[in-house]
Amino acid sequence: MENTQTTDRTETHDTISSEKVDGTAVYGRDGDQIGSVHHLMIGKRDGQVRHAVVSYGGFLGMGEDYFPLPWSELTYDERRGGYIVDRDIAQLKDGPRYQRDREPSWDRSYDDQLTSYYGVRLM
Amino acid sequence: MENTQTTDRTETHDTISSEKVDGTAVYGRDGDQIGSVHHLMIGKRDGQVRHAVVSYGGFLGMGEDYFPLPWSELTYDERRGGYIVDRDIAQLKDGPRYQRDREPSWDRSYDDQLTSYYGVRLM
Repeated sequence: MENTQTTDRTETHDTISSEKVDGTAVYGRDGDQIGSVHHLMIGKRDGQVRHAVVSYGGFLGMGEDYFPLPWSELTYDERRGGYIVDRDIAQLKDGPRYQRDREPSWDRSYDDQLTSYYGVRLM
Repeated sequence: MENTQTTDRTETHDTISSEKVDGTAVYGRDGDQIGSVHHLMIGKRDGQVRHAVVSYGGFLGMGEDYFPLPWSELTYDERRGGYIVDRDIAQLKDGPRYQRDREPSWDRSYDDQLTSYYGVRLM
């Protein structure tokens, strides 16, 4: 951690700022970095984060892919300073994904795709 | 809504992108705009949004105040395209607040301050 004059107040043991989540690294089961959190999809009424949309690949912003992960897939790892996903990178790469500007309709059928692929119930 | 070639996929009837929440207007009970959502504070483990930190006032980024509202205080209003808080602006202005770079410790005692002031149980 940098030794700066300002104390990092964007995080406590329990809560994290949405500004800090964006850009947080995401690692796969084998420890390699998969990508980083680009943004979150949040339930409007209940304020529950449903998915973290992880960005992967790309160069100078071109060709970046996004793949949404159910929030329950992410476990925050203090030591690594990022999220661990207990999946193989290959499985993630085969998962639902989309390119920038080709965002899917975030509807029930897309939710179903994600749920079936990851085998988890979306919160 | 603008008539553009890209369809707005950052929102469905149920979920909203964290990119879109940031900057959303927040209105008080009498309909006047209080400020806008600056960022969210999210529970790391459960992915539950606890507070929306609303920015108010300021000019060219100077002198802006932030006041955190429990997520349960915000109701999304489709017609107005923003959140309504069923409080008087005066009550909000007297609530817990802080200036940029003077962020509080987001700990249990701060949570308690917010809970007592707003009389709601934080999710």
